[in-house]
Amino acid sequence: MSATAPLIEYADASAEVRAVYDDIMATRKTDWINNFWKALANDPASLRRIWSNIKEVMGPGALDPVTKELLYVAISVTNGCNYCIASHSASARAKGMTSAQFAEMLAIVGLANETNRLVTGLGVPVDERFR
Amino acid sequence: MSATAPLIEYADASAEVRAVYDDIMATRKTDWINNFWKALANDPASLRRIWSNIKEVMGPGALDPVTKELLYVAISVTNGCNYCIASHSASARAKGMTSAQFAEMLAIVGLANETNRLVTGLGVPVDERFR
Amino acid sequence: MSATAPLIEYADASAEVRAVYDDIMATRKTDWINNFWKALANDPASLRRIWSNIKEVMGPGALDPVTKELLYVAISVTNGCNYCIASHSASARAKGMTSAQFAEMLAIVGLANETNRLVTGLGVPVDERFR
Amino acid sequence: MSATAPLIEYADASAEVRAVYDDIMATRKTDWINNFWKALANDPASLRRIWSNIKEVMGPGALDPVTKELLYVAISVTNGCNYCIASHSASARAKGMTSAQFAEMLAIVGLANETNRLVTGLGVPVDERFR
Amino acid sequence: MSATAPLIEYADASAEVRAVYDDIMATRKTDWINNFWKALANDPASLRRIWSNIKEVMGPGALDPVTKELLYVAISVTNGCNYCIASHSASARAKGMTSAQFAEMLAIVGLANETNRLVTGLGVPVDERFR
Amino acid sequence: MSATAPLIEYADASAEVRAVYDDIMATRKTDWINNFWKALANDPASLRRIWSNIKEVMGPGALDPVTKELLYVAISVTNGCNYCIASHSASARAKGMTSAQFAEMLAIVGLANETNRLVTGLGVPVDERFR
Repeated sequence: MSATAPLIEYADASAEVRAVYDDIMATRKTDWINNFWKALANDPASLRRIWSNIKEVMGPGALDPVTKELLYVAISVTNGCNYCIASHSASARAKGMTSAQFAEMLAIVGLANETNRLVTGLGVPVDERFR
Repeated sequence: MSATAPLIEYADASAEVRAVYDDIMATRKTDWINNFWKALANDPASLRRIWSNIKEVMGPGALDPVTKELLYVAISVTNGCNYCIASHSASARAKGMTSAQFAEMLAIVGLANETNRLVTGLGVPVDERFR
Repeated sequence: MSATAPLIEYADASAEVRAVYDDIMATRKTDWINNFWKALANDPASLRRIWSNIKEVMGPGALDPVTKELLYVAISVTNGCNYCIASHSASARAKGMTSAQFAEMLAIVGLANETNRLVTGLGVPVDERFR
Repeated sequence: MSATAPLIEYADASAEVRAVYDDIMATRKTDWINNFWKALANDPASLRRIWSNIKEVMGPGALDPVTKELLYVAISVTNGCNYCIASHSASARAKGMTSAQFAEMLAIVGLANETNRLVTGLGVPVDERFR
Repeated sequence: MSATAPLIEYADASAEVRAVYDDIMATRKTDWINNFWKALANDPASLRRIWSNIKEVMGPGALDPVTKELLYVAISVTNGCNYCIASHSASARAKGMTSAQFAEMLAIVGLANETNRLVTGLGVPVDERFR
Repeated sequence: MSATAPLIEYADASAEVRAVYDDIMATRKTDWINNFWKALANDPASLRRIWSNIKEVMGPGALDPVTKELLYVAISVTNGCNYCIASHSASARAKGMTSAQFAEMLAIVGLANETNRLVTGLGVPVDERFR
């Protein structure tokens, strides 16, 4: 109920929460759980639901794993979520992101945030060719 | 000076503006200019400066062209810039983006905007391993 | 004038500022002032004006007190204002918010931030029935 | 793949999409589908996943149905999603929201967006009592 | 109660609403009311309260009138409020804003939105000298 | 490559980076470099490009130096960038901003963020006179 939620460790977790933790670790081939899930575990239904969404959306698909993490970081930078920037940058690095790719992504984030506002301030109408 | 800026067509443009338009068309191997540049041309210094930035940041680099456009669309969706979504989606398609890639990018944008807020609302501390 | 404003304690406050502090404490039936007001007191006109607005908008009305605080928290989460999340979550709890209500509010905040972007990215036209 | 996605009508939908449409109509006790779902249906996996989330989060719980819709509208106003404002305002009305409640919610949205920025601009530290 | 509020014209307004309209026109030395007030008039308490705030904050003070309107436009561009951009750009022009000033303000808005994200993405710590 | 970028000190910088640092110090008539540039220096191309933009946009023009910094602060407050608020508030003070001007700017930022949402929530159509 607090704004800063207590972190639920595996040892203290209910069977319902442990089942999600186990699936996170198995899916990610790792032996630890990061704080996001431990905080979300205060609401087991949300924990289960969000993990199910992440597993489906961030799993194998039409985009390669590094691109998917770069998109996550780019949005987190735009929204100012420091935890999300840290965690998804770490994931991106673990999946092979280079420093040059991180720098290029960040340059695009900056520039898109700039031109988004120039377009809005100028009231630019959509070109027929783009419709 | 208007919030909805008049569009400066090539025929009516100054030599300074035409030089930028010519470089845009040559760089993009196309024969037309989209409305963003025609609106920005009301301030020739900004036109020159922003084009120079776009050319450098969106040119060849560490990320492939489709990934760069997908990042641009993702940020534009997060910021709610309809023109930017339309123009960069068109660029992404022209560079080879598939429907499945667009759908997957959009799913990530939605999910990242969701989890960014969950993290903020829960006040999740950054894990030591991410520092 | 600083970005991190000094906090004006009651003992150091002018009569104008003390009058607002007194009204805050009387209205809230409490004997302390939280930091927001102490920072805002650097500009007494803003202190008076904002307190007057809060008192009117957050006072008894068509929505119950917990719902009003939940709305405040939901917006603060969306905007990433940690102080505001902490202070209005505390107010909500004091007024009877349960842990289940907090969790449900946060789940809605996350989901609305997600679907807001899906709608924007898909360019969904408003249904006739909604007009 | 378009930024403005085509709307998939029931008659043209695949069996997978129809199954979701059927569940939406049954759950909502209605005989029509609003445009959000018809646009999202271009990506059947997202349609299924997002509907499953909405059904779980917006279903019966710890908050009453009108409060849940008011939270949705408040966030949509903060993010500037016109479609979302229209659709969730309509849902709120259908569930019993009064004009006075809508006006009060909107006043809170405005004020929270104001004080969120005052807090940020003043760099207000979180009070010990709120931790 | 609608998301698109009906506009309350002077002829149809209550005495309470007319009193605010009269004060707006007298203060601004004009004979018309723009749509924002006509929409807000659906909630007379909000109409009175917001006008009182605008009159106090946007009245004569430490900043000149054009600077105050430029700040309003800059924030409206950042938030993507087209109506607000149009109305405050018109006010700025009426108070003497030049085209060069509009262009310079917009360039700053774009650049600040860019560097705000670069700072966030890089996790830059605040310099001791700035504290 | 980290989310929290290492700070590149002058002594450790490449000739390319030192050239930009030298130009920053010469342009600003100062002998130190703030952390933003030291973090950005991890990507020398971005360092050079962003400095070039800042130098052009924030240099002498149609708006006075204090107004330009106030606009920067206003946007940074709206976006929640604490570093940017601190650094540009310091610049504004150094260029002559008074406490009263800071307070008035912040009041406008708050009010604009409020009315931007009221306009959006009410769906106010743009007046003919503003077009």
